[in-house]
Amino acid sequence: MRADAARNRARLLEAAARLVAEQGADNLTMEAVACAASVGKGTVFRRFGDRTGLLQALLDHSEQAYQQAFLTGPPPLGPGAPAARRLEAFGVSTLRQMSAYLDLYLAGDPPADRRLVIAPRQVRLTHITMLLRAARADGDVELLAETLMGWLEPALIHHLTRQRGMALERLEAGWRDLVARAVGPATA
Amino acid sequence: MRADAARNRARLLEAAARLVAEQGADNLTMEAVACAASVGKGTVFRRFGDRTGLLQALLDHSEQAYQQAFLTGPPPLGPGAPAARRLEAFGVSTLRQMSAYLDLYLAGDPPADRRLVIAPRQVRLTHITMLLRAARADGDVELLAETLMGWLEPALIHHLTRQRGMALERLEAGWRDLVARAVGPATA
Repeated sequence: MRADAARNRARLLEAAARLVAEQGADNLTMEAVACAASVGKGTVFRRFGDRTGLLQALLDHSEQAYQQAFLTGPPPLGPGAPAARRLEAFGVSTLRQMSAYLDLYLAGDPPADRRLVIAPRQVRLTHITMLLRAARADGDVELLAETLMGWLEPALIHHLTRQRGMALERLEAGWRDLVARAVGPATA
Repeated sequence: MRADAARNRARLLEAAARLVAEQGADNLTMEAVACAASVGKGTVFRRFGDRTGLLQALLDHSEQAYQQAFLTGPPPLGPGAPAARRLEAFGVSTLRQMSAYLDLYLAGDPPADRRLVIAPRQVRLTHITMLLRAARADGDVELLAETLMGWLEPALIHHLTRQRGMALERLEAGWRDLVARAVGPATA
């Protein structure tokens, strides 16, 4: 019964993730998730409480899948590819993850004095720092890692894509350029 | 009488700015400003209302002086020096300005969806973009300017200096390195 409940929950979250990928988190409703997963609306409400609960569960679920992909998934994002190549793939993956759930990331924006110490950011920073060292980046690697992290801030992605109308592809190209500047042309 | 009042106000703000430079904004009191400017405490309260009013006036005053220095002041910060050199000086000046008034900048931190469109940030971004073009930086200059701007965010300066104990000098060296990576070795 317990495994059954977990399976049902996962199925609802996957249906919700598909809907977010197609239409954005803004347009997600409890009804649409119920319909996409072929269950009654009541089931979705019982499981997640309300729309906010569903969105939070969805963000946790997708952040987990995103983290697993770069920590233990297949290359070039996961282990096995050269560090500079993994670094490129990591930024592109992060930009897509944040862009897909941008409103949820913005809604969870911590106050300025706690913004850079939250756990998901620590995971990203540790990963970037490790890859910069593996790619033998010149210079102050801890600071370089912070510069790269700055490119992956939800507030910046929001500003560039929505307030200045840039395509996500341009941000991805900007990331690749930044990686090349950080690790040098030799390893690019 | 009006000119007199303006002069007195400026004198109080300069006394306050000296105290902030010596002891930080956290330790600024109305009494200390009165004492440093050799006026009664009542004069300071009449002029600024309360400590918050004084701090806001001080931030406006210092932000103005800081802006004038890079827009029209003497080189290398102001016009007359090579663009790459001005860019270096601009970052160092901004890091110092923000570090001196860090708590005030943090207190005025806008919500995530408005953080990158506030006026003082626009002034800085325009200036950096102009200098990057003048220094003939390769690549997507608008995005490079955003990367450089990321290094001058109050939340980052707070995190690196206070939460991770880095000296401001290390952040300044990081800025110089970033400028060299942005405009290339030829103009560095």
